Amino acid sequence: MKKIIAIIFLYLLNYSSFSQNKLSDTYHLMPWPQEISSNNTSFKIDEKLTIYINGKDVKKRVNKASVQFLRRLANRTGIFIDEGFPTKNKNASIEINFDTISNLTTESDESYSLTTTKNKINIHAKTDVGAIRALETLLQLVHFNKKGYYFKGVSITDSPRFVWRGLMIDVARHFQPIAVIKRNLDAMASVKLNVFHWHLTDDQGFRVESKIFPKLQEVAADGLFYTQEQIKDVVKYASDLGIRVVPEFDVPGHASAILTAYPALGSKEGYKYHVERFSGVFDPTLNPTKEVTYLFLETLFKEMAPLFPDEYFHIGGDENEGKHWNENLEIQKFKQKHNLKTNHDLQTYFNIRLEKILNKLGKKLMGWDEILTPSTPKTAVIHSWRGKQEGLQQSTLIKAAKKGYQTVLSNGYYIDRVQSVEKHYTVDPIGNAVLTKEERKRILGAEATMWSELVTPLTIDSRIWPRTAAIAERFWSSKEVTDVDNMHKRLKVINFQLEKLGITHIKNKDVILRNISNYQDITALKVLTDICEPLKIYSRNKGGTEYKTFSPFTLFADACTPDAPDAKLFNKAVDRYLANKSNKNQTKLVAFFNMWIDNHTDFQKINNNPKTIVLEPLSKNLALLSSILKTGLISNEISTNNYKKALKLIDELKKPIADTELVIVSSLKKIVINHKK
Amino acid sequence: MKKIIAIIFLYLLNYSSFSQNKLSDTYHLMPWPQEISSNNTSFKIDEKLTIYINGKDVKKRVNKASVQFLRRLANRTGIFIDEGFPTKNKNASIEINFDTISNLTTESDESYSLTTTKNKINIHAKTDVGAIRALETLLQLVHFNKKGYYFKGVSITDSPRFVWRGLMIDVARHFQPIAVIKRNLDAMASVKLNVFHWHLTDDQGFRVESKIFPKLQEVAADGLFYTQEQIKDVVKYASDLGIRVVPEFDVPGHASAILTAYPALGSKEGYKYHVERFSGVFDPTLNPTKEVTYLFLETLFKEMAPLFPDEYFHIGGDENEGKHWNENLEIQKFKQKHNLKTNHDLQTYFNIRLEKILNKLGKKLMGWDEILTPSTPKTAVIHSWRGKQEGLQQSTLIKAAKKGYQTVLSNGYYIDRVQSVEKHYTVDPIGNAVLTKEERKRILGAEATMWSELVTPLTIDSRIWPRTAAIAERFWSSKEVTDVDNMHKRLKVINFQLEKLGITHIKNKDVILRNISNYQDITALKVLTDICEPLKIYSRNKGGTEYKTFSPFTLFADACTPDAPDAKLFNKAVDRYLANKSNKNQTKLVAFFNMWIDNHTDFQKINNNPKTIVLEPLSKNLALLSSILKTGLISNEISTNNYKKALKLIDELKKPIADTELVIVSSLKKIVINHKK
Repeated sequence: MKKIIAIIFLYLLNYSSFSQNKLSDTYHLMPWPQEISSNNTSFKIDEKLTIYINGKDVKKRVNKASVQFLRRLANRTGIFIDEGFPTKNKNASIEINFDTISNLTTESDESYSLTTTKNKINIHAKTDVGAIRALETLLQLVHFNKKGYYFKGVSITDSPRFVWRGLMIDVARHFQPIAVIKRNLDAMASVKLNVFHWHLTDDQGFRVESKIFPKLQEVAADGLFYTQEQIKDVVKYASDLGIRVVPEFDVPGHASAILTAYPALGSKEGYKYHVERFSGVFDPTLNPTKEVTYLFLETLFKEMAPLFPDEYFHIGGDENEGKHWNENLEIQKFKQKHNLKTNHDLQTYFNIRLEKILNKLGKKLMGWDEILTPSTPKTAVIHSWRGKQEGLQQSTLIKAAKKGYQTVLSNGYYIDRVQSVEKHYTVDPIGNAVLTKEERKRILGAEATMWSELVTPLTIDSRIWPRTAAIAERFWSSKEVTDVDNMHKRLKVINFQLEKLGITHIKNKDVILRNISNYQDITALKVLTDICEPLKIYSRNKGGTEYKTFSPFTLFADACTPDAPDAKLFNKAVDRYLANKSNKNQTKLVAFFNMWIDNHTDFQKINNNPKTIVLEPLSKNLALLSSILKTGLISNEISTNNYKKALKLIDELKKPIADTELVIVSSLKKIVINHKK
Repeated sequence: MKKIIAIIFLYLLNYSSFSQNKLSDTYHLMPWPQEISSNNTSFKIDEKLTIYINGKDVKKRVNKASVQFLRRLANRTGIFIDEGFPTKNKNASIEINFDTISNLTTESDESYSLTTTKNKINIHAKTDVGAIRALETLLQLVHFNKKGYYFKGVSITDSPRFVWRGLMIDVARHFQPIAVIKRNLDAMASVKLNVFHWHLTDDQGFRVESKIFPKLQEVAADGLFYTQEQIKDVVKYASDLGIRVVPEFDVPGHASAILTAYPALGSKEGYKYHVERFSGVFDPTLNPTKEVTYLFLETLFKEMAPLFPDEYFHIGGDENEGKHWNENLEIQKFKQKHNLKTNHDLQTYFNIRLEKILNKLGKKLMGWDEILTPSTPKTAVIHSWRGKQEGLQQSTLIKAAKKGYQTVLSNGYYIDRVQSVEKHYTVDPIGNAVLTKEERKRILGAEATMWSELVTPLTIDSRIWPRTAAIAERFWSSKEVTDVDNMHKRLKVINFQLEKLGITHIKNKDVILRNISNYQDITALKVLTDICEPLKIYSRNKGGTEYKTFSPFTLFADACTPDAPDAKLFNKAVDRYLANKSNKNQTKLVAFFNMWIDNHTDFQKINNNPKTIVLEPLSKNLALLSSILKTGLISNEISTNNYKKALKLIDELKKPIADTELVIVSSLKKIVINHKK
């Protein structure tokens, strides 16, 4: 019942006010299309629905996407659609027209138009990828009432703002099996992301099978790696969804795994290289002064290149602090001999060598923004991860574009920082920078990055989704689509559609809580997860030494997520109440306090093991404070004694508990201060 | 709150009385070991826990199982175990000793002994597989209190009753991706099952890549098949878990898929073969009179044999009704010429040919019990699926064993019939049959069969688990372990441990209900799923024509499962009440009635689309009847008027709704009859 009240609040708050165009009030499209108009009709979905494909595609992208469309539509609506496959009959309900098969490059067209009317749905696109983007939009137009399911009648003309709309997944820190990758590719396609950046190697593991250097996976992967067949399968799977795959082999730093397998490539003689179990920046670095290093990389890249047909090839290049280079006399001499003043110069020397190797393989070298130096070849692609979130005119993205480099932005989209979706949604890749047409064209787009130090296959989806859908809108939609409340409203619907696609973010929360409670009722724990968030911006794992790669990730912090739903509601409710102490506004707050008071009673019933005991102070102090605030609200003041107690409780509640923070503390404090006697 | 009351009832009912040995009251072991005694100690689990492996195994089964053991233990307890891999230090907390690496045959030893004391855990086994069975037992010995987690102090000596303890999964009717197979292999290993029977082909699809006959997967699989690399990967994965993989290529019937690819092999000229979308027994059959058929099968089996190293090779052979054979004059002539009187004789001719082909490949032919005829070679293995559940002395299993055939039983273990776990648990493979030692040895064991006409990757786990854990106990444990209440008590704990292993049976129920409710609160729907079960024994899909392979399987019936939990509780509570109308017993029933009355109010709030509307009569009639019964109970009689109404409501509630049945109807009726004025 307490949860139901909270849900009603959510409804009231969400549907209250926003300014964006009228259609976005009722249509749950994400990313929001460039042009949309309603024709006030609707297309009823029934057993007779059929799809006809008019284009040079028999068993390829559009056919596969159409079959999936039919499955997803049937499963979502419960309708027994007669024809499970595209029909050869031109008089189909849905007619798809396109001209060419996309070759999936940064030049490829993804535009489409979609018209739904009472009896017919038309999709037109230049490429097959445009057509499958349209099918995703159509699936977002499914609405229902008691009588049935229908598509809203609309005319849409759509195309992306940026050609590069990516998600990076780090599979080195925690390996992510093929099933995790595939379901995330499905989800990416559903929000029109088109680049999967696969961070395949790092200090904690080398995750691809090499037949030429088998020690890489045998010694440096703990058995957790992809076979070459699996890589090909994923690349094909992504291609079917219109998603490019950009591999990353991070060198010369982040190389503990490579050096565990082949220590001779290292910069420090006699160093005991090992697969890293902690997180952070480590010293092991490839030796850029030895020819064997380039021979190794050329051979490896030559073996890997055919697996990844995309033109772009990411070599990392980040966070090399050069400690082992400084400690190596030979390297010092090499620098002098080649007039390389700094380690940065040496790394540029290294990058120039790699750039040539990759060029020979028909690849463009891409690297994190450390690779940007005056001597970096203009053919390199700069992946901006550092620049400031504000004052983007100074960011490496803009700088690189102005200097003539193609660039991709990730700064502002580090989703592993577990910050709010709004933080990311409000970052515009270009901001107010003034660019020439050529410079603008060099800004290919942007990528959300999911570093995996603290996520496992059980939890990774809950860190990526639903937030990345809003980020995808930032990359696809017009710059003017910025209404945060409206985004939240649409994201709520998209959130559940992601679950239907196989994303596990909702259901795995319960799995973790059942584990914590040892199979008891998880409602009390759920109430707490709804107002707590994992510690942000890497403070959960200070110095990278609290968690090892094999530490448990089935803890309370793993069940909590960014954008804790009740916190959002409560914080808004407090602001409203303080602005207007109406009975209605007071009642809402009192309902929250009652919920948390009762919750502690429920919590005590399931408090039976160390994983729950650690949460007891949180549950208890919140209940105590809620009692004080409830009384205070009703009498419109807090007694001096209670005021002191309340401040003390707030101090307690401010402290991280079980690697989470209670994200309603400031609101609680506001009430206390406001009601001081 | 209503759910909490129900949970308390569950607790009360479950823990009330059972007779099995004392230890099974508190130890949640499944399958129950052959010998167990407590030493009244306990081993505290903390960061310092280590494993030492003493045996000829470096990177093989025991090492892998030990790493998984450490991960599972850490994730379950939340303890940050320091050493994430087996140690080289002999002074480890857990010491594993074994003699040899198992070659995974029906002769392989799986016995082990396990001793846990305050400071040391010892595992001894003849083979590595015995050792990993012991590790699974150890994981079931994890207990906890507020202070921490610990292993119960015990001495166990254990070995299986049957050497063949299988689970068959049909991936033809609905394809099951690798991830589904792997998580089910994990679960199988956790309850000591050791044969995965992979039903790879049927009318609805051919699911293995053939490089020699590529049309099989290109034309007859809708793109849903395993590559040979994936097959090898699964076989390796299973082997690491001590599980044999027996492939099944079903011939000469169930051959629509094969014949769609290669119609020339069919028995009916000019017949339009197609991949079947419905369920049932179909006419397309290989032509056993043409040499090309044997050439095809020999070539195919020769290609497949190396992928499946196991000695046993299943050729199906079931449900050939011979219609196309009867319609083919050439086949009639062939039968006359070879003095084959019946189609059964012709099929035996076919089987004898296949048996020779398989013998050449070093394989034993295994087939469903139709293959058993007087001329069947004694080297064939009979898989009994028909025989009667009672009167087993007449079953094909016993018959075949007495005739000299090796046999495996599946009759009684058809889990796709969605019957109660008790039904299967109480079937003993041998029963009271009197057998010589030699005959007994020929009974290898038994297999649960998961036919997949009505299950998809979303729901298959909920049909297999947790029930198959109890079946696994039937196959492993002593014949005397038969206490049903005690089994239920232990199964409840195992149920949640299966979830930790990745089995999706619990969490995917919520996914389906969220889809049905269109993202609203699912509590009201959950209450209904707790008393409804999918229609049983194939009545959900009469004649196989209601559901196609691509129909939606996200319906209320898919969220419901066998062994509906509240139904079990309510039915017991009714019996108790009718035996003793105490206040306590009455209160329990009234609580149920109140829950169902209130639930209809909640249901109406979320009743917003056709998938919920179909459930309205169920929810409403149950609430109405509950009202009448509540009044009746309290006044200890039901008025004449209400009595009539009640019987009418019961008639309504008896009817299947949305392909489910309300499994408390008989109990409801008992109350009505009992309280007639």
